[in-house]
Order: sequence, then structure tokens, then C-alpha cells
Amino acid sequence: MKVAIIGATGYSGAELFRLLHGHPHVDRCDVYSSSQDGIHLSESFPHIGDIDDVVLHKLDIEALAKYDAVFFATPPGVSGEWAPALVDRGVKVIDLSGDFRLKDGALYAQWYGREAAPAAYLERAVYGLTEWNREAIREAELLSNPGCYPTATLLGLAPLVREGWVSEDSVIVDAKSGVSGAGRKAGLGTHFSEVNENVKIYKVNTHQHIPEIEQMLGTWNEAMEPITFSTHLIPMTRGIMATMYAKAKQPLSLSDLLDLYKTSYEDSPFVRIRKPGQFPATKEVYGSNYCDIGLAYDERTGRVTVVAVIDNLMKGAAGQAVQNFNLMMGWDEAEGLPSLPIYP
Amino acid sequence: MKVAIIGATGYSGAELFRLLHGHPHVDRCDVYSSSQDGIHLSESFPHIGDIDDVVLHKLDIEALAKYDAVFFATPPGVSGEWAPALVDRGVKVIDLSGDFRLKDGALYAQWYGREAAPAAYLERAVYGLTEWNREAIREAELLSNPGCYPTATLLGLAPLVREGWVSEDSVIVDAKSGVSGAGRKAGLGTHFSEVNENVKIYKVNTHQHIPEIEQMLGTWNEAMEPITFSTHLIPMTRGIMATMYAKAKQPLSLSDLLDLYKTSYEDSPFVRIRKPGQFPATKEVYGSNYCDIGLAYDERTGRVTVVAVIDNLMKGAAGQAVQNFNLMMGWDEAEGLPSLPIYP
Amino acid sequence: MKVAIIGATGYSGAELFRLLHGHPHVDRCDVYSSSQDGIHLSESFPHIGDIDDVVLHKLDIEALAKYDAVFFATPPGVSGEWAPALVDRGVKVIDLSGDFRLKDGALYAQWYGREAAPAAYLERAVYGLTEWNREAIREAELLSNPGCYPTATLLGLAPLVREGWVSEDSVIVDAKSGVSGAGRKAGLGTHFSEVNENVKIYKVNTHQHIPEIEQMLGTWNEAMEPITFSTHLIPMTRGIMATMYAKAKQPLSLSDLLDLYKTSYEDSPFVRIRKPGQFPATKEVYGSNYCDIGLAYDERTGRVTVVAVIDNLMKGAAGQAVQNFNLMMGWDEAEGLPSLPIYP
Amino acid sequence: MKVAIIGATGYSGAELFRLLHGHPHVDRCDVYSSSQDGIHLSESFPHIGDIDDVVLHKLDIEALAKYDAVFFATPPGVSGEWAPALVDRGVKVIDLSGDFRLKDGALYAQWYGREAAPAAYLERAVYGLTEWNREAIREAELLSNPGCYPTATLLGLAPLVREGWVSEDSVIVDAKSGVSGAGRKAGLGTHFSEVNENVKIYKVNTHQHIPEIEQMLGTWNEAMEPITFSTHLIPMTRGIMATMYAKAKQPLSLSDLLDLYKTSYEDSPFVRIRKPGQFPATKEVYGSNYCDIGLAYDERTGRVTVVAVIDNLMKGAAGQAVQNFNLMMGWDEAEGLPSLPIYP
Repeated sequence: MKVAIIGATGYSGAELFRLLHGHPHVDRCDVYSSSQDGIHLSESFPHIGDIDDVVLHKLDIEALAKYDAVFFATPPGVSGEWAPALVDRGVKVIDLSGDFRLKDGALYAQWYGREAAPAAYLERAVYGLTEWNREAIREAELLSNPGCYPTATLLGLAPLVREGWVSEDSVIVDAKSGVSGAGRKAGLGTHFSEVNENVKIYKVNTHQHIPEIEQMLGTWNEAMEPITFSTHLIPMTRGIMATMYAKAKQPLSLSDLLDLYKTSYEDSPFVRIRKPGQFPATKEVYGSNYCDIGLAYDERTGRVTVVAVIDNLMKGAAGQAVQNFNLMMGWDEAEGLPSLPIYP
Repeated sequence: MKVAIIGATGYSGAELFRLLHGHPHVDRCDVYSSSQDGIHLSESFPHIGDIDDVVLHKLDIEALAKYDAVFFATPPGVSGEWAPALVDRGVKVIDLSGDFRLKDGALYAQWYGREAAPAAYLERAVYGLTEWNREAIREAELLSNPGCYPTATLLGLAPLVREGWVSEDSVIVDAKSGVSGAGRKAGLGTHFSEVNENVKIYKVNTHQHIPEIEQMLGTWNEAMEPITFSTHLIPMTRGIMATMYAKAKQPLSLSDLLDLYKTSYEDSPFVRIRKPGQFPATKEVYGSNYCDIGLAYDERTGRVTVVAVIDNLMKGAAGQAVQNFNLMMGWDEAEGLPSLPIYP
Repeated sequence: MKVAIIGATGYSGAELFRLLHGHPHVDRCDVYSSSQDGIHLSESFPHIGDIDDVVLHKLDIEALAKYDAVFFATPPGVSGEWAPALVDRGVKVIDLSGDFRLKDGALYAQWYGREAAPAAYLERAVYGLTEWNREAIREAELLSNPGCYPTATLLGLAPLVREGWVSEDSVIVDAKSGVSGAGRKAGLGTHFSEVNENVKIYKVNTHQHIPEIEQMLGTWNEAMEPITFSTHLIPMTRGIMATMYAKAKQPLSLSDLLDLYKTSYEDSPFVRIRKPGQFPATKEVYGSNYCDIGLAYDERTGRVTVVAVIDNLMKGAAGQAVQNFNLMMGWDEAEGLPSLPIYP
Repeated sequence: MKVAIIGATGYSGAELFRLLHGHPHVDRCDVYSSSQDGIHLSESFPHIGDIDDVVLHKLDIEALAKYDAVFFATPPGVSGEWAPALVDRGVKVIDLSGDFRLKDGALYAQWYGREAAPAAYLERAVYGLTEWNREAIREAELLSNPGCYPTATLLGLAPLVREGWVSEDSVIVDAKSGVSGAGRKAGLGTHFSEVNENVKIYKVNTHQHIPEIEQMLGTWNEAMEPITFSTHLIPMTRGIMATMYAKAKQPLSLSDLLDLYKTSYEDSPFVRIRKPGQFPATKEVYGSNYCDIGLAYDERTGRVTVVAVIDNLMKGAAGQAVQNFNLMMGWDEAEGLPSLPIYP
């Protein structure tokens, strides 16, 4: 099994390399870049050391067509342009960018401010929210890996929304993210002295992950209305917490809530439901592919609070990509993924 | 003018000392403790250095009765026990703890898990949310300084709630706080290795600041219903951001919103309203007494988002206490408070 | 292969559990504690989730005698008391505490302020600085795992000191450590608000790792004189950097230096020597068992600078313990250890 | 008194603005930039809020000639080019950059990689290490403010070197700095995800502050030889700790050492010497102009350890600049400087 990563000089690409380099079924993992050529990956990422042969190649369709699977961990627009040619040549493509997540090209153009990939490929792309789409993923040729915020949000809301337990117009998501979600490109917004000892809110009501979340919620429940979705930058490197609020249609008990979630995820090894009164912290999934979920119901207000945490570079990017890759190849979905978070 | 701080070995007490030590109208600031006696304050806080005469004394009513004003920066229960005797002797008391914030002693007992201060003094206590209570504060003998979360939340919600622009059952507050809000007492929950690179949610639907917030909201608008209020621990030392969501009763324009807030706070030097599309970050008020507020209205959902930030030890504790002290003494409310935050 | 960890509620114990739980040759890893009994490890460490059967047992020699190997990740004094009985029953013991590191019991008493373990066992204990002691480690019954600071320091100094390239009275070690090295016990010195945005120096000239380092240096070069050794607390969770200075006896070239180090460690997969002009950062070994080393020679002063970094919980504790365990069991030393650091 | 800051969009410039805006003898503080024109300073630094008239002007000698004093907080090369013209017109200039620190223009060219300012002005420039140069500073027309590392290092070494208590070839300085010392320009080296949870060493033996330190040491003691000087980047925003090592010529007692330092600095309000066995941490001078110093003597090695901490933007830049400005104007040197650090 030979695989390639395009965009290995970004954080998701580096995390993919970590996972695929140690994956028991991957014999060889090569690295490509849209911007660099001929240098060893350790020039960009000294932590990988002087492993033989890990030299960055320039993106080239002929060369890439020889791999069994190709991962795109690239900025917007790259996979939209290059992935179709690879799919046509029978290469399995796993795309970590947002280029194939929205079925509606016009919506993509509106939220991403650029032209969408060809409609036929948007249609063929399978949305890789693993826990809720395993059958389609097993057959996928073009896998669109979910965004980091949508992963935490959708795993947290799925049972409630699918069962129709909460009012369709009542969903508010207050998300907090570590800085690695902004990528490796330096800018004032991610400058240490500006981010450290600071909390910032950004893209209020305008984050491009909103339509991705709403698209999936609408699939589960046609009556869903637009959500309120806010994103905050936290002075840490990894981790997303989505704190979600929704109005229960009927009074609930916490034990009903917990039962619903436990049943929903009983066959999902990477989703862990916390005990009554306990809530997950982002550090408790650090470096792992877990999504941990805690739940509360407030009798005073009739609202449910759902707290979902992930490591944005793992379950929110590279980890879920490998989980989907495993399913596409017919392996156990946990193959090559660490069984425990790194703590503290 | 001679003042005393009780509880100078905690963070709010240290911050009070910083402010009062440099206050132009304070000739002498002595320090008291409920637990330590006879040691120099620098044994506990080396940053203050070997300033003459700053020796911790044990709490003693006779000694304290000689001060013009006494600040309590103490754990729950201390001021409730000792402040009445000082008030009776004509000493102005500014209490930074929660002991006199709730008018209803039963509510205090329920949320704080201990007996309330005598009802007569609960009644006499003036709630020191400066911007909305200046007249009463000027006459106060027993000033109850607001909690950190209530300060950010109430300053952020006041205009909307007072004007009745939002549905009374729709208010959700998602608050994020630095760790200094938890005080100086060491515990696993504030251990560096547990908090660093981590976001935690805590006291879900059970924080003791909820009734304090609802009490004030109810004063402004009798129709207000219970709020949903969540608190998160952020890996930083200082700062609170309250992100608040509420449903507009009628469609709004952002400029109407901004006008309302600017008008509401035009005579309040410590509240700054951000321009359209701009939102404050906690670091932008670090070390200062400002509360900065940003606003958004989302046409898709009909919801208003209010973002309010403060330094929890300043506007959320010692800074607001000095602001109230200034008013009680008939001075300009900004006296002795830094005119600019420290950045970065 | 059945193993047990005593002290699984500390950070080194948790890290050992992470490694041994995923170790390909370990069928079962049980957890013991000197303080807790009967609770699931996840009560203490929620990140491990609800893995079956990971319940803390109270330290009990009879029960422990049934394991193939037992790891002590305990405070000073515990293994000194309990390990001999296990060794006597033929259990392989790997001790991560300092109890068996110093051959001279009087020296232990002086620096640790408590009585040493029985001399016969101090004698039998094999010092597990893997890269310089593999033969003895393979035969060890009682393995004394090096301290975190000594590991970084000794790996960094070994080639220079063994070859006698530097003056024996000129060695200065300025070490910087993340906070997890201080363990999980909460105290003011590790309280988030005190450590964050701060650098502190501690135990100046009095750290108990000094005699451990000097003992090994003396083994390599009898002429070595006492070293100057300083430790600093850095606002991060994991990582140690030792910056080391020594006077060259003769003028050197950087390429000679690099050659010496590359040759010294050419058969050591976990020591990586950086290229000329490049120096390692602690994050570049995060979560891994690597020790990365950078070198400089300054013609102006005739001094060598050696920079060595490790993850204090991995190569400085649990990782090196597993590396030694592998050798004791006759396996490849890298078995069960991650092949790449986690970055960023 | 009208003053101007050139380079107000950098961190030192912002800190200068904070101090001068609140300075009791400064009526007006205008802001200039070499790159921006016409925008309000709050566009760049929202923390200052909508203060009237704080609009960035483009650097212009005619306009600047009208101020009583002009501060340069600019990148290398700017003040070297522009300051002479202002000095010629009788404007007092305080330069926070390195352009006038080295008396020897050739040395500047060698370490800074660019041409030095005119020799006549290098000669006229007064080096503003306040505590050791007050007389000259009072008369200065062109004040060259010391670098951040030299300030901590020189204040820490001065008594020992001036008295000749330590071997002239034995001085090693291991310095640790927060990230704000690298300025506000974004780059991979100051990207949050790269710096957080990380320690890096940089410019090993090549930092441009080395000749500045050695120049002053040589003034104090002609026999001084080159020093070893290392700089480390710490995951915090503000603060420098210099840990310094030197060999005592004769055995010393700690009390002799402390007496020497106390005597040396008894008239210096901003230098505080710690008690025996106590050492300063960077956070203990945060936001203040203090340099705190701790001392140790190790009988085992005969070495002195000196630990000096400053806030790099205060005593290491803007604070010391204002201290010098005060002397140049004939005021108390503490005027307009905060009397206490901000903690925690």
C-alpha cells in the first residue's frame, strides 16, 4: 500500500504523516507540496528527523496516479482543481480541505468566496463524518473529510436533532478552538504575543463551516432552521470544544439524554459519553481521535447543554481522515490510530 | 485618608493593594488577613518588594474601626460576619465577596450553601455595578461589589434588557474566564499541567453568579425568565469574555444596536463600544478597568450576539471596587485607575 | 506478558500506562497505587476513558509477585521499601524514582533527606541510561531509571567528558523544565496563575539530581570536578532543555564535534544530532522518546555549547523505562515507543 | 512638554505610549510611524480605545523638530539616519534601537550587518544604563537606551565585575526571554503554535547584544575577556531572566555578596536585591520598571550565580527610556513609572 500526502508542510499534513508513517498497512508514505520541491520534509518540520527518502515533491498528476490513495491537506481550491483527475484514474482521494464538502456549488461560492469544484464531483464526494456515514464511506472514491468545527458540532448534535428532541430554531453553538486550526501561515492574528493570555472571537455569524453544519443537520431533520454559530480563538495549540445549547421540546431527564447518546454511539469506538455531571476537557483527547461528549439538562430553562471536544488536528482532520481511509480500504476503523490520548 | 484591605493575600487583595498604594487620595493602605499575622506582605507576594510597613495584621474590629474605608477581599462568609460591626461604627465598607450581593438570604443559602448575612444588612447593601447605580453608590455605607461574571454579563445585556429588545426567555451566556478567577488556593483544578493547553467547562447551570445576574436583570425588566449560563476555564491568567445570545423581538439593524449601546454608555468612561464588525479581545483590557463591548445581529437567525470583555481582577473585582470607592468619597470615578491597558 | 504499574495516578504512571497499554508484547497492564484502592483509573485520569478492568489496587507484594515486571512510578521512599521483596521473588523491577540511583547511601541521605534503600540493592541496581549501559541493562533484575534532568544532561555531555575534550572543572548546566516534572500534587509553586507567563529558578545548587549526574560523569572520567547545575521552571507542561557549557582543552572545529557525537550515537535510534547551526527545541521531541542534541563551538571564548532536549515524561521517565524494559526482555529497544513526536 | 514617539505601531512604542500618555509632566504625546500615515493608533492597537487625536503621522523632520523630546522605537537603521538631524535642531532624542549603542562603528557593522550611524553621533550618544550612568544621562542630548538583554545582564554583573571579584574569563550568561522581545512582525518563529509549549535557543554565540554587553563590561574592568552569551525563547509574552555564572577569585560568603549588591544599588529605586536563598521570577516585575536580583555562591564549585529579571518592554525598553527621559529633564527618575508590578 503506497500513499501520498499533498500539503505535507501544513499542520494537518504533518499530523497525517505521523499517522501514516506508523500505520501498519502502509508500506510507503510520500509527501508532496504545491509550493516546495526537492527539500527534505525535516527542513520544514525538524521533529520528524532524518528519516530516509522523505523529500517533498511538486504536485504532479502522473506521479500521483501511481498511489493507492492520495490525501489532500491543502488550502482551498487545490483539491477542487486536482482531485477529479486522480479520481478519474482510479486513485482513492481523501480530501481534508473544504472543496468537496458542500453539495451546492453556489453555497460554496458564497461562503468561500471562490468557485466551487465541478458539480459532478461534488455529487460523487462522500462526506466523511465517520460515525454517521460508514456505509457510504466504505464505497467512497472521493472522500470529503469534515471540517474541525463541524465534526465536534455534528457529533454533539446528531442524536438530539435526528430524534427531534429539540426545537429546530433553538440551536446555538459556541465553539472554542486552539490556534493550530488557523494553520501554519504566520500572521498577526496568530502571533504569539497577540494570542497568548487572550481570548478572541472571530468570524461572528460568517464562518464557512456554518453551511457545512446546516447541510448535515438538514439531512437528519428537514425542519431544522439556521443555527447561531460562534468561534473563539483560545491560547492553546490543539483542541476544540463546542458548547451547544438547544431548547427541549419536552421536559427531559438527564438519564434519558445519556441513554440516547450511549445508544447512538455504542458501536463507535472513538466517541465516549461522560457520566452524569461530568464534562470533557479538550486536553483529555489530546493527540487522539476521540470525540468526548458531556450532557446536561437544565430544568430552570428547559435547555439541553451538549459539550463535545476533539483534537482539531486528529478527529478534526488527520485522525478522522485515517479513520475514513481505513473504512475505504476495508480495515478496522481504528487501525493506525493511537488508542489513548497523551496526557498531560 | 486611611484604608485597609482584609484578605490581602489573595489575588483581588493584591490587585487592590496595587491600586490603593498608588491612589492619589489614599495616604495609607494597611493590610489584614483572616489567616496570617505579623509577616510582611512580600513574604506572600514578592512582587511588592520591601515597601515599609506593609505587614499583615490579624482581622480585628477595634483596629479596623479607625479606618475611613475597609475593603473585604475575602472568601465567602467573612464579610457577612464582620462587615456589619464596621458599618455600625461608621466605617465605609466595600465588600468584594458575594456575601451581600443577593437581597434574598434564602437564595444565598441555596446557591452558596451557607447561611446569609443578617437581612437588615443585605437590605442596606448597595450593589456596585457602577455604570447603572451611581446615585445609590454615592450614598452607600455598605457597598457590595459585583462578581466578575455578573459585571461582564450585566454590562453587556443591560441596554437590550432594559429596552426590552430581546425575548425574555431567550438569553444564553457563554462565559470564558482566566484562572485567576479561581483564586490563589492551589488545587488540581488550577494545577498548571492540568489547565495549560486545555479548555474546561465547569459548574454547568449551577454557578453561584446566576442568581446575582438574574436579580439585576429582573430589576431592569420584570418579565425576564431564567437564563442559561455556562462558565469555561481558559489557559490564561486574567480576563473574562462573556459571549451572549438573545433573540430580537423585532428585526434590528446593527447601527440601531450600536447607537443604543453608545447612548447607554456615553457618560461611562470605562465602557467602550467597538465599531461595526469589530469585537474586543480580553487582552485589550488587561490590567485596566475597561469593559469593552462588541455587537452583531444575524439576519439569518434573528439573534443578537453581544461580546463583553473585562479583566476579572480589575473591572471584575479590585478596579470596580476602587471605582465605587471613588464615588462613595465624592471623587472622580476614574481616580487612581490606570488610563490604559497593558499590551501585549 | 503481564506487567503492573505502581503509582499510576501520577504523570509518569499515566504515561507508562499509555505506552504499556499499547505495547505489542504486553498482554495485560494492571495499575496499583500506594494511596488509592478500588476506583477506576479514569476517576483520576478521565482521558483514558472506560477501558475494562483498569481499577487501582492497593500495593500488595503477594499480588505483585505474580507479574513478569513491575514499574514503580512512586514518590521517594516507596520503591526503596518495596522493590527488594519483589526482586527477591524474581520479578523484574523498573524503578522510575530516585531510590536506587545513587550507589552511595550516605549521599542519598544527604541530598534526599531520607534513609537510603539497603546497600545490597543499591549495588545490584543497574542505572538505566540506555545509550551508555545496554549490556548491563539486558541482564538487570532491578533497573534504576535515570532522572529527567540527568538523562538530558548526561546524553549531552557523555561524548565530551568520555573523550576528555573539555576541562574537568568547567562544566555548567543551565536546565529548563516544563511543569509536569514537578508531578501532579497541587501546590502554590505549580498553580497556573503563578507559573503562567513566568520563569522561575529553583533549587539553586541544591537539586537532588546533581549527585546522580556527577556519579555518572565520574564513572566516565575520574578527573571530573563538581558541576554547576541550575534548574528553571518554564510555563509549559512537557519538555526539558539542558543548555551546557564547557571549556575546550584544545581549540575545536564544529565538524569535529559533530562527528564525535554522530559516531557516539550512530547505533542509538533515539538520539538525533542536529546539523551545523541548527539546534533542537523541546517541542520537536514532544510525546516521543527522542533526545535531540545541537552543538556549537565559540572561537571567541573557547567554549563548547551543547543543547539537549527531551520530553521529561518520555525519555526523561516512562519512555526510557519502556526502552529499558524492552532490553531487559530481549526485544528491540524501540518496541512500543512512538516513532514520531506529536507536532505542533 | 510635547513629546513624540516614532515607531508607535511596535510593542516598545505602544508601551512608551502607555507611559507617556499617563506621565504627569507630558502635556501631549504624538505618534509617528515610518510605514503608516493618517490612521488612528487604535486601528493598530485596539486596546488604546478612541482617545482623541492619536493619529499616526509619517516621519517628518520639520514636524518633529517642534517637540521637546522625540523617542525612536524603530527597527535598526531608522534612528541612525534621522536622529542626527533632530539632535542638531536641539531636540532631545531617546533612541530605543541599537543604532547608537556601540561606540565603534566597525563593530556595529560586523554584528548588525549594516552601516553604522555617523561616528560623531556615536561619540555624542550617552548610554542609558541608568543606574550606572546618571550624571552623563542628565546632560545627554542623544540618549542611547540599552538593549533588553544588556540591561538585565549588566545590572546583574556590574558589582562583581567592577569590584573584580570574579575571574575575567569565566562569565557565562544564559538568558531567557518572552516573545514580545522579537517585536510585532509576524513570522514562523513567533507563530503561536510553534512557540507555545516550547523552548528554543537562538543566535547561539551570535546575538548582536554581545558587543554591547562587552563594551560596558570593558569600561568597568579592562581585563574582561569575551563572555559566553545564550538566548532562549520562552512561551510567555513579557519578561527576561538572565542567569549568570562566574568563578570567584576568592572564596566568598553569601552575606558579602548580598552586602556588595545592596550597597551598589542603595540609591537605585528600581533595583531590588532578594534575601538570602530567595530568587526573583520574571512575573514579579511584570509591567514595572524593576530589575530584581538574586544571588548564590556555591562552595562546591566556587562559582557565583546571579539571577536578574526585568520586564523586557519596561526596564528593557520603554520603562528605562522614560527613566532616562526623566533624568534628562531634571525630574525624579521614577516620575510616570508604575510603583508596583501587576500580579498575577
